[in-house]
Amino acid sequence: MPFDHLIHQALLLTMEPRSRPLAHGFVAIQGTEIVAVGQAEDRENLPPARQYWDMNGDLVMPGLINNHCHAAMTLFRGLADDLPLDEWLQQHIFPAEARWVDYEFVYTGTLLAAAELIRGGVTAVADAYFWETAARQAFAESGLRGVAAQGVIDFPAPGVPNPTDNIRVAQEFIDSGSASSPPLITSTLFCHSPYTCSAPTLKQAKDLTRQRGLSFFIHLAETRWEEAQIRRQTGLSPVAYLDSLGILDEMTVAAHAVWVDPADQEILARRGVKICHCPECNLKLASGVAPIPDLLARGLVIGLGTDGAASNNNLNIFGEMNLAAKLHKAIRLDPTVMSAREVVELATSKGAQVLDLGEITGTLTPGKCADLIVVNLHQPHLTPLYDPYSHLVYAAAASDVQHVMVHGRWLMLDRRLLTLDWPTIKRKALALAERINSTAARFPA
Amino acid sequence: MPFDHLIHQALLLTMEPRSRPLAHGFVAIQGTEIVAVGQAEDRENLPPARQYWDMNGDLVMPGLINNHCHAAMTLFRGLADDLPLDEWLQQHIFPAEARWVDYEFVYTGTLLAAAELIRGGVTAVADAYFWETAARQAFAESGLRGVAAQGVIDFPAPGVPNPTDNIRVAQEFIDSGSASSPPLITSTLFCHSPYTCSAPTLKQAKDLTRQRGLSFFIHLAETRWEEAQIRRQTGLSPVAYLDSLGILDEMTVAAHAVWVDPADQEILARRGVKICHCPECNLKLASGVAPIPDLLARGLVIGLGTDGAASNNNLNIFGEMNLAAKLHKAIRLDPTVMSAREVVELATSKGAQVLDLGEITGTLTPGKCADLIVVNLHQPHLTPLYDPYSHLVYAAAASDVQHVMVHGRWLMLDRRLLTLDWPTIKRKALALAERINSTAARFPA
Ligand SMILES: [Zn+2]
Ligand SMILES: [Zn+2]
Repeated sequence: MPFDHLIHQALLLTMEPRSRPLAHGFVAIQGTEIVAVGQAEDRENLPPARQYWDMNGDLVMPGLINNHCHAAMTLFRGLADDLPLDEWLQQHIFPAEARWVDYEFVYTGTLLAAAELIRGGVTAVADAYFWETAARQAFAESGLRGVAAQGVIDFPAPGVPNPTDNIRVAQEFIDSGSASSPPLITSTLFCHSPYTCSAPTLKQAKDLTRQRGLSFFIHLAETRWEEAQIRRQTGLSPVAYLDSLGILDEMTVAAHAVWVDPADQEILARRGVKICHCPECNLKLASGVAPIPDLLARGLVIGLGTDGAASNNNLNIFGEMNLAAKLHKAIRLDPTVMSAREVVELATSKGAQVLDLGEITGTLTPGKCADLIVVNLHQPHLTPLYDPYSHLVYAAAASDVQHVMVHGRWLMLDRRLLTLDWPTIKRKALALAERINSTAARFPA
Repeated sequence: MPFDHLIHQALLLTMEPRSRPLAHGFVAIQGTEIVAVGQAEDRENLPPARQYWDMNGDLVMPGLINNHCHAAMTLFRGLADDLPLDEWLQQHIFPAEARWVDYEFVYTGTLLAAAELIRGGVTAVADAYFWETAARQAFAESGLRGVAAQGVIDFPAPGVPNPTDNIRVAQEFIDSGSASSPPLITSTLFCHSPYTCSAPTLKQAKDLTRQRGLSFFIHLAETRWEEAQIRRQTGLSPVAYLDSLGILDEMTVAAHAVWVDPADQEILARRGVKICHCPECNLKLASGVAPIPDLLARGLVIGLGTDGAASNNNLNIFGEMNLAAKLHKAIRLDPTVMSAREVVELATSKGAQVLDLGEITGTLTPGKCADLIVVNLHQPHLTPLYDPYSHLVYAAAASDVQHVMVHGRWLMLDRRLLTLDWPTIKRKALALAERINSTAARFPA
């Protein structure tokens, strides 16, 4: 039986442990699955395929994983920046969310995000927001893989005006997803933070995800203010506090982990908590710099995330790789920390493990799903090529992604989106933005 | 008389002080010069033009300025990364330079750099390297504006095997340039650093540029090691040491300025030294974080630079803007420092002042040269638009630059390079890289 797709003449990075770049690489795909990976100088030495793709030396690798995102916030991109955190949240983001976020907003904003994610080479995303039914619908249409997590917070929230309903809404979201949603999107919940969710809420939410065998997402130890606040309230650090509630285990994904001292790091390592490093967001909001090299040294599994577009302001994992590789070097005055290869692992194989998707994606391995990207190396800023990991981390850009495949299906070819109707998404996004802008009274006047 | 070019229906950022974004903006160009800037809803209200360009709402702004670059090092991009600084320099970069850098290398590498610079929206660049006659020739062919500076160092260097010739070679470079080079490129010199140039070399070099009324470039206070070394040798900080030699004045451009304490900052401010901030390079080489907000508060004129592609690894000023805006927020735990608007000024109007080009470029102002770029806003990651400065700094990418004009001449239209022969440059660059790689014994094996 011929392969469905034979991708050939690639510079292939499988991202399997200890793998080396393969020149003249090929990936053979049957249905949704990778069935063979290897090297062959000539096509004649390979079995036939329904569709043969000559990559002409371009780079083929696993798709990138965005481990933390609030996709619909693309519609707030650049609405407010460079402000004190409190003013930014209380006077801009929270009022805008209260006024504008509904099913249609989240659906349109998530389609917009999906377009950006695919064009930036992301094949799996962990999203967390309100009206997550709408986000799940949008992701399903996009063809992306991922995790959709309904937000849980002990304040009135979009779609959940009464916070006492927050767990019930999340449960209904999870149960409707397991019954009806497309197989690429897992449904779970996201507790906003230790300071916006009470102890009972946190425990109920974790119980629910534990019963269902699902990942539990939370913002953790993001700001100095949070660390001080939780210590004041509980006498414990945010990490120790969550641990005292029984929240921390291998299915807990903590975004940020900026303010974690060695005792906290020890707890995170002992519990096997998964970490999402969001360096661009941490810088832009002035949260600080997470001790990622220390967490890696303790064996924690870490991925990369962009966070929402209001605090980044893009969904570009190439940017996160670049910053993750460089930032810790300067903070520690040590250029050997966070090597390019290690950072590409965070964005691929490790990122998949963070989302409990390590068995099905994150490396180009026979038996895994066919989630891959093709990076166009034939450009001035990627010429010459001595080391492909270095290029991905230190020189490449999201716009260098030429083709994207998820689950054996092309989502983008030659930078043209195949699953999304960009003109319609754009028109709807601009219409929403015009209404948002009219109340914000800013440019263009 | 009709305009030569009328660029219209732009979202216009003139970058003049206190300017606001102009919708339906236009720029009228006669020859090499901007002759009018303004707003007009309809074309009928504007005078005729030989060439009318409808920008359909795309962003038009001054071209970006790269204030510090070693262009030809693009040929070493990714050759060695993530290594201790000493090992990187002594075992990789210096031997590679000694073996490979000649006229042809610098010419080809600089053409390669020019292709990347233009595609990233740079219209003026300050370059510093050896065989700078070759770089000047390449820049002249590219149509870019800028400053070419012949490297001066008290070691054997490419093209200057006997260091006692270094000032003479620089002087010949300067004098040949003023006589024969095209008018867009100013020729001067670059002293490598306080620790690689002796006091007599530094003084002679400064005297030469002072006599000629030229900018004097130098790496200054880049690493902790340099700071310790100069203190050991002179009892002074690098800044105080250069000041004691009479090197510091308004025509001195210091790259990096990472290890400058308040006393150093006071000296830099008093002397009016121009600063080039290279945040990506400073992170990647683990040099540290320059106190840019403090230097700005003291009134120093600061621009942005990429440094060479071996220590970055690209020539992308969008990346430098993004990092310059974010990095200092996290270091100071203050999200209000380095606003998006302020950072765009560093990359345009201030950058031009750093290069003593403030009278002729850096803002869209009648009477200045027509150096401008058009940024394609019609993309998912730039949708919607609330604040164009925010988008440029926090969301846009080099690949969003659609058209580039320098001195009234299009260097790129629809991302197609008009002055450079990319296939030939690529072929020559790859041939050189193959030879370099054959001795480095690395991928692809
Ligand atoms: Zn978040
Ligand atoms: Zn330099």
